This record gives sequence, C-alpha cells and structure tokens, in this order.
Amino acid sequence: MNQSIYLTGSGQTRFGEHWDKSLKDLMEESIDAAIESADCTALDIDMVVVANMIGEMTSDQAHLGAMAASFLPHHPPALRAEAACASGAVALHTACALLESGKAQTVLVIGVEKMTDISPSKIAAALMGAADSEKDAACGLTFPGIFGLIATRYMYEHNLSREQLNLVSARHHKNAITNPFAQFRKEIPAETISASPRVADPLCMLDCSPISDGAAAVILSTKFESPIKIAASQLATDTLSITDRPTITSFAATKDAMTSALEEADISRDDISHIELHDCFSIAALISLEDMGFANPGEGIELYEKPLSTIHYALSSINASGGLKACGHPVAATGIKQIIDVSKQMKESGNMYGLAHNFGGAAATCGIHILQQS
Amino acid sequence: MNQSIYLTGSGQTRFGEHWDKSLKDLMEESIDAAIESADCTALDIDMVVVANMIGEMTSDQAHLGAMAASFLPHHPPALRAEAACASGAVALHTACALLESGKAQTVLVIGVEKMTDISPSKIAAALMGAADSEKDAACGLTFPGIFGLIATRYMYEHNLSREQLNLVSARHHKNAITNPFAQFRKEIPAETISASPRVADPLCMLDCSPISDGAAAVILSTKFESPIKIAASQLATDTLSITDRPTITSFAATKDAMTSALEEADISRDDISHIELHDCFSIAALISLEDMGFANPGEGIELYEKPLSTIHYALSSINASGGLKACGHPVAATGIKQIIDVSKQMKESGNMYGLAHNFGGAAATCGIHILQQS
Repeated sequence: MNQSIYLTGSGQTRFGEHWDKSLKDLMEESIDAAIESADCTALDIDMVVVANMIGEMTSDQAHLGAMAASFLPHHPPALRAEAACASGAVALHTACALLESGKAQTVLVIGVEKMTDISPSKIAAALMGAADSEKDAACGLTFPGIFGLIATRYMYEHNLSREQLNLVSARHHKNAITNPFAQFRKEIPAETISASPRVADPLCMLDCSPISDGAAAVILSTKFESPIKIAASQLATDTLSITDRPTITSFAATKDAMTSALEEADISRDDISHIELHDCFSIAALISLEDMGFANPGEGIELYEKPLSTIHYALSSINASGGLKACGHPVAATGIKQIIDVSKQMKESGNMYGLAHNFGGAAATCGIHILQQS
Repeated sequence: MNQSIYLTGSGQTRFGEHWDKSLKDLMEESIDAAIESADCTALDIDMVVVANMIGEMTSDQAHLGAMAASFLPHHPPALRAEAACASGAVALHTACALLESGKAQTVLVIGVEKMTDISPSKIAAALMGAADSEKDAACGLTFPGIFGLIATRYMYEHNLSREQLNLVSARHHKNAITNPFAQFRKEIPAETISASPRVADPLCMLDCSPISDGAAAVILSTKFESPIKIAASQLATDTLSITDRPTITSFAATKDAMTSALEEADISRDDISHIELHDCFSIAALISLEDMGFANPGEGIELYEKPLSTIHYALSSINASGGLKACGHPVAATGIKQIIDVSKQMKESGNMYGLAHNFGGAAATCGIHILQQS
C-alpha cells in the first residue's frame, strides 16, 4: 500500500433465502447499512465497485455498477468486478487500486448475489462458469464434483478419515450460532455431517456451502480515517482448469497470494489472530490453512481437532463468523462479508491483524486481504 | 494521470461471425497479436483485466480473468471488469488505476465477446441486462426499442428527418471499406438504410450495430514506453433506467465523462483530431457528438452532412474505422478496439490527440479515453 486505506463503513444483509427481496433490494439494504455506519456521507463516495458473479443468470441483470450508483444521489462512476466466487476480493483489490492511484478518495464496494430465484440445476450450471467450460464442464463435472475429486485425493494422500473431515463443518456451524447475519445458526454434531445425503463422494450435503442470497458492502477511504486499515491486498491466479495443474491437493494461487500479502503487510503469519477463509467445501478449509502456512501439508485438520490456543501460532479464530458453510455463500458477497467479519473480530479482541482469504473456482483466483488495527 | 501510461502493444481479431472459434479462441488470438506487437514479452505482463459482458449467457463461462491469465506462462493476477457495452472502457480505467497505483507496471487488457452462438431472442434478452431489469425490461423494451424511443423524441425535438439520419450509418459503412478487421466492408447508399427492415420505429436494421464475435487486446505500461500514451481515462454514470432521467435526447454520463477527460488531459476539444464514438444505433452517434460538445444540440447531423474539414473544429475523422455499425459490436471488445483504431489513426495522421467514447446501456455508464501522441 502506497497510502493508508481505511475501512470507514460496512454493512450487510442477513445471508439466506430472501424470497421477498430482489438483487436490487439486497444491494440497497447493504449500501444503506454501510453508509449508516460510516463517518462519511453518501456524497463523499466518489467511486463504486460492485462484485457479482451471476446476476445475468439469476436476475437478468448485468451493469450492476450503474445500478448501485443509481442509489446514490450523485451517481458516481461505477463498475463491476468479477472473478467467480473471488469477485469480492477482486472488487476490493480494484477499489484499493482506485484509491492508491488517486482516482478516488472514498470507494463503496458492494458484493451481491441473488441465487435462490432459479432452479438448483440452473444454479449448478451457472456456478460451473467459474471452471473451464471447455475442459471441466464438458465432462460433466460440477463444483461439488470437482471438490469431491479433490477430497478423495487429499484423503488418500494424507490418510484423512471421513470422521476427521466432519470436524470442519461442525466447527463452522457452532461458530455461526452467535452471528445474526448467518444463514444457519444451529449447532450440528460432527457425526451428522457425514450422515447427510452424499452429494459427490466423499462430500455430503453438510460439507457444502449453501445456495444463498445476500449482499455486503464496505466503504474504503484514504480520506476518512478509522481504526482498521487495509495492510495488504493481493491477488494471484492459477490455471482455470484443474486438469492443467501438477496437484489438486494444494492451491498455488493461495500460496502466491499469501506470500505477497505477508510481504506487503510486512508481517509474519504468526502476527495474524483472526482468519476468515474460503470453506466453499469442508476440504477447502484444510487445504487453504496448509497453503497459507498455518499447518503443514496434511495437518490442517489439527486446527479443528485441538483448541486453537494449543497450536503454536497466534491464531485465535478461524471462521468465527461461521464461514461460507454456516453463514451462506452468496458468491460475490462472500469476499466483502469476510472483511466485515474480520474487522468485527479485531475490534472485539483488540488484536492487531486479521486476514480474509477468498477464492474463485478451484482457486483459479485467490485474493488475500490483511487488515490492521491501530 | 499521475504517471505516463503507454500503449505498448495491441491486436485484435476480425469482428464478425466466427462460427469456428470459441470465446477462448478469440481471446487467445487477440492476446497473441497484442504480445506480438509489443516491445515487452508475455512475462513482463504483471496483471490482466478482461472486459466481457455476457460470457455466462453465451459460452457458460465466467471467471475470464483466470482464463486469460492461463494463456500466459506465469498466469499473473487477473480480473474481469464489466459495465455492459462500456465494459471495455471500465477495464481500461481499471488497468490505469492498477498502473497508477503501482500495483502493476504492465497490464494486458482484453475485451472479448462471443455472441453468435445463441439465438437472437436470447441475445436480445441478455443485452437487456444492460438496462434496468425491473423498470425497463419488465415493460417489454429491448435496446432497439429504447433507442427507437430516443430517436423518435430526438427527431421530434430537433426536426431531424429520416433521410438525414440515413447519413450516419452510410458514412460509417463507407469508412469501414478500408478496415480489414471490420465485419461489413461494403458501401451502403444512404437511401438503403431507411429501406432496410424496420426494427423499432423509426430505426431500421441498418441503423443498428450487428451481433458480433470478436476480441481486442491492448498492453498498457508505465515501464515500456511508446509514442502513444493515455492522456485521460474517465468514467461517468447515469441512472440505469431511462425512466429516471429528465431527458432522453442527451446523455449526462457522456457530458460528465467528457468534461472530466478534457480537464485530465488539460486540452480543449478543439485539440482532438480523431474520434471513435459509440454508434450502437445511428441516433446515438448524433447525441454523443452533441454531448461531447462537437455540435450544438440538434446539430450533430451537420458533421455527417458536410465534409469535416468545413466544420470549425480540428476534427479530421469520426469513426474512421467504421464504428460499431460497420466494424461490428462484440460488446465488451468495442471499447478496446476503439483505442486500437484511434491510435492507428493518430500514427497515420501524425495528429496529437484522439478520443474513444464508449458507453453501456443507454449511456448509464460512459467511458472516455483521450490518447496523446508524442
């Protein structure tokens, strides 16, 4: 960061099934909440970035930048950024570039998705747009299918049992109980996870993040200061298709983004107290923790088997919000909502650093943001 | 611009009906051409921005940033930017922000669209995503319908005849004869325009830009210098729905972007010699020329009735490429292709300034880029 970017305001809708609200309604609700919480006014916003993946498919609506700007009295310049489920992270990165370049001083970033209006088969097809349509979708894969393959291979390589994997979703569900914005606020016993319907072997329904509606918005500013600032904003990219990679049990984009993010923030991973990570499927949480260096390969599960306080890192929470599994995963809203949750956790704990890890597809795009509290 | 951004490389596919090529093929062809023309190598590219509007609808493919990055050996960080038909302009603006912020030194920007693989009715519906799906699409409007209303009102307000309007498309078609990348390289007599099938009264088929496949790519750099640089990159936004505006015969976003762009480039409009403007429909060319201040309201047609050399501005060409009408309009590729054409015109004429005007929807988003030759 060549200048300080502050988290000046934030707000979100509850994530879940909003049968009575359109994409536009969800967007408006999150914008209003973010502005309400901010030190600045709507008129101080000089640029808008909207994260959205599949608005065209779900709501016949592209051009969401202009739609969002229409909610502000002066409709400032606006655009949409997309990188599948990492749309939130790339929108934040774009906002940081706009701020650092001096093109804007205060940017409203909104992530929004309205997924429950179309049939599950159509949603599954739309989400496969995050993979390579010629190489992956063409052979009949869906995303649960891709992560089923990944889980199968991971369990073989690292001797992870189905019972161990249950601990991931169980922990995330337990965490969500206190989160008023979470889609599912219910403790689910570990054994229930693998007893839920099999979706793509070995993954069961309760290993998979749900289909959700929701919006989250933040206001980033170089002008209006706040105790939380962005210490790093980094993106990395891998091949779009998993068929082009040397391994499927580790994601190069997460590793690359993490290395760059720690370098940019000028900290070590031991300085990080709170993580919100991209658990689109339970197995993704373990791989992501390992790729970020919080566990050795194959040992990510230890962070779910033991209390975090007994592990040697300074970590005090992983997906304290409930993560994608329990909060819900309105895909492009997730990356923005993670920032909101990490900042809340930092304010509550007083800890100095938190991290949001958001990826798209099978981590073909990964965005990592590190927040710093002064 | 807080630092110089050079147009280091550029390339495009022919715009047209590419039955034998996928979105991915078109993207690859334009990337190869841009790198081939550049002073840098593929490995010098440290960020990728892809402009695309409806890849999910036409090719079941989102996540085009990662797809584009997959074509480069080191797959650098990448994202997609979208603002309907102004996706090219917002991608260029995003690239400028990434460069000016120091997040990147050399950015590959690709605009791509593969529109001929789905039925005309589906394309018409997909393109309506550029308008407000709740206010505009819901009453049965299509984009030819919106611009039909605009043309009707404009002709009433300014007493423009159908015969006069014919001159716009006729001139653009004539210009395209020498452009090897144009979809239609054929002179069309003015009277043929209004004799073509009526699409949305008073607009006929030959008033409308066609459905096209195509890709265009540029490489922008702060590191690799070239004789052409970006003197201004400005976006402006208006209400998404035309129903929320005080007038439909003038576009506030074009006016706002033009004012800001001239200010950023620190020039007057009289310094501009070449324009590529957004003639998605013939009437849009007239309105755009007026909104940019090259003609008084209602007098844009004079720029098509008289030789440009007899008008008092320094303008030597408008849509010398053939514009959207004759080049074709693979929507997100248009804004990038305009930059390529303006730079070619400047190199050929030796003139110092050229301008690309690209809008989305009914100009709910407008992007204006001014190029400068040293």
